Amino acid sequence: MKLSIQPVPIHIPGFQFAGVRCGLKENGARDVALICSDVPAAAAAAFTTNRVKAAPVLIGMERAAAGRLQAVIINSGNANAFTGRAGLAVAREMCAVVSRELHIDQALVIPSSTGHIGVPLPRDRVLEGVRAACRALSPDAFHEALEGMMTTDAFPKFATEVVTVGKRGVTVAGMTKGAGMIAPRMAIEKHATNLTYVLTDAAASPAALRRILQTALPHSFNAIVVDGDTSTNDTIVLMANGMADNTPVAPGSRDFSRLCDAGTRVMQRLARLVVKDGEGATKVVDVEIEGARSPRDAKRAAETIARSPLCKAAFFGSDPYTGRVVCALGYSGAVFDPEKIDVYFDAVQVVRRGREIVGEVEERAAAVTRRPEFTLRVNLHAGTASARRITCDLSVDYVQFNSDYRT
Amino acid sequence: MKLSIQPVPIHIPGFQFAGVRCGLKENGARDVALICSDVPAAAAAAFTTNRVKAAPVLIGMERAAAGRLQAVIINSGNANAFTGRAGLAVAREMCAVVSRELHIDQALVIPSSTGHIGVPLPRDRVLEGVRAACRALSPDAFHEALEGMMTTDAFPKFATEVVTVGKRGVTVAGMTKGAGMIAPRMAIEKHATNLTYVLTDAAASPAALRRILQTALPHSFNAIVVDGDTSTNDTIVLMANGMADNTPVAPGSRDFSRLCDAGTRVMQRLARLVVKDGEGATKVVDVEIEGARSPRDAKRAAETIARSPLCKAAFFGSDPYTGRVVCALGYSGAVFDPEKIDVYFDAVQVVRRGREIVGEVEERAAAVTRRPEFTLRVNLHAGTASARRITCDLSVDYVQFNSDYRT
Repeated sequence: MKLSIQPVPIHIPGFQFAGVRCGLKENGARDVALICSDVPAAAAAAFTTNRVKAAPVLIGMERAAAGRLQAVIINSGNANAFTGRAGLAVAREMCAVVSRELHIDQALVIPSSTGHIGVPLPRDRVLEGVRAACRALSPDAFHEALEGMMTTDAFPKFATEVVTVGKRGVTVAGMTKGAGMIAPRMAIEKHATNLTYVLTDAAASPAALRRILQTALPHSFNAIVVDGDTSTNDTIVLMANGMADNTPVAPGSRDFSRLCDAGTRVMQRLARLVVKDGEGATKVVDVEIEGARSPRDAKRAAETIARSPLCKAAFFGSDPYTGRVVCALGYSGAVFDPEKIDVYFDAVQVVRRGREIVGEVEERAAAVTRRPEFTLRVNLHAGTASARRITCDLSVDYVQFNSDYRT
Repeated sequence: MKLSIQPVPIHIPGFQFAGVRCGLKENGARDVALICSDVPAAAAAAFTTNRVKAAPVLIGMERAAAGRLQAVIINSGNANAFTGRAGLAVAREMCAVVSRELHIDQALVIPSSTGHIGVPLPRDRVLEGVRAACRALSPDAFHEALEGMMTTDAFPKFATEVVTVGKRGVTVAGMTKGAGMIAPRMAIEKHATNLTYVLTDAAASPAALRRILQTALPHSFNAIVVDGDTSTNDTIVLMANGMADNTPVAPGSRDFSRLCDAGTRVMQRLARLVVKDGEGATKVVDVEIEGARSPRDAKRAAETIARSPLCKAAFFGSDPYTGRVVCALGYSGAVFDPEKIDVYFDAVQVVRRGREIVGEVEERAAAVTRRPEFTLRVNLHAGTASARRITCDLSVDYVQFNSDYRT
């Protein structure tokens, strides 16, 4: 795995970072990351809805509920999932070390893990890594932290925005990791191996942050599919440490929509990067369903295409095979009349009122499917609801990679 | 595609067959098949639940409802699906030709098609093929008919049984096709590209045949998954022509359970052959869930593992990666306590009460996953319900094949 760390420095006032090596990864890459605010921050978080929740997820759910956090301690190379009580104990110890070394209330520290499932997390090694991370903390180490949480990622994924809130310029910056086992369906305070951290120096209430997550999640991480497997570890954390000294943003306040929009854009850019880096993926496909009878039908239709092995293999082959798209729509559970639908690859219409358009359109559609990013749009003409999913193709490399993952 | 037609001759008293070429397939293989009973037969049928139903499915649903059929006319190389009214017209003409040539009531003839979706079925060519099939009818042409319905199949799939019903020996013989777009979820008289025909010379009422389908489907075709895409064309037809002259079998009669058992075994053998021939598949995996809270939970758990790209890629890699299995169980929607579950690969237990067993067990489990067929068994310890799905691995060849399918 070649890492090309972007040289753009990222600073968020009042946040420090570390990324160190403790030997959890065989290739010797950084495997422990620490994100820490200088002061306790308002926070909101969402976690995987998978019934098998990793030890760090169980602890994070408990602690994030209070709406205040100061640090996140992360390891890669081991998911600490399906590891029983011993796993919970190690995850708590990771937080305890941060608490002790940095003089932070333990209740304000949450753990995250990503990597192999069902393998005990080596306690001594990871705790040594956590201590090293505490010593390495620096406002300049955003990229090192990001590297420390990567697993099968081919490139580091981050996004930043500057937005004016209460006459103050505030930074909203996010980092994310993940390339496989991606179909995050996160729920706030109920329950990725997508790990995402969005940080801002704005002052905002926990309620405002929760609302931002609720607004942005369906249009970002909960709208992406790489393979359709929903991880035991998916986690997203929003932290606002108030260092910008603006009037705190509350839901419904004048500044809320600006901060919410900035947060949403950052989350959308990050989510798209995860699909772009999907294991083996060669292209990103936006699946847009319009004219559905209900929002549920729209989601089902978009989700079914985004997960269909046959549609995804056709995308890989640059084949605008409408028959497979129509077949997937048909078994999605959405209600529609096949004789009314329209289908487009970008601007090229391939089905009009239920009939495939033949002729040179086929070559133009094929040209669209050779692009690194394109949109597959379907109008069901059954109502007014719409939904979007962002997916990637299914390549030979995906299968090769995931059949050798542990060897 | 190399066909190794089995030399075993199959005869079912009172049934004739044909398999001819009309040029729908570029490779010049047989592409029209005809199955015909000498006399009108009792019948039951089930069709895809996909909302986009191929033209022949729409006609078959209508005609099969009456419980009597005499002939099935089948073409491969073109699914006649998503082809609008023109598609319906050609499918009706195929039946009309059989009716005219063989002096059979048109209402007793149903069509089936399999192949590309969304491409108009060439009328003149296919009707010429149908006429040729009528002329070629023979009691000896079971295998030619079977070849005529194959598409991406690597080998012909059939099964036979002889069973005593009312003191008469009767034959139950079935043929099936299908290797991709396989996750048949057929419903009787509501709505496969799995095509299956099970024929017997027993006398049985349409009600008995419907009951046999209802009994056998959940444990045969509706329990298999190759890729998880449910086709627009899936069809299964049971025909009993009564030539054995037994007392007609009715539901609840003394002979019913024997005929039902024979029919079920034939359908199970056929369904398993479809998985064995799954596109790119190198192994068959029986996924068994026990101890589920409810039958619905058991089905969800089995189905989710059977469809998980990560589990299926691990099967391909001969990797008994329990973490992925547990992850799939977790997002299946089934309710269970991860700390209670047991997991086995054949007889090798790899998880006991929620803990992975380490050591030499891992090598023994890996040896199981190198077998061409093995069972993955999970006991959720949450209740008494159970379910089984039969799936295959996800190979590099599956993706390669399905990304070039039309080129």
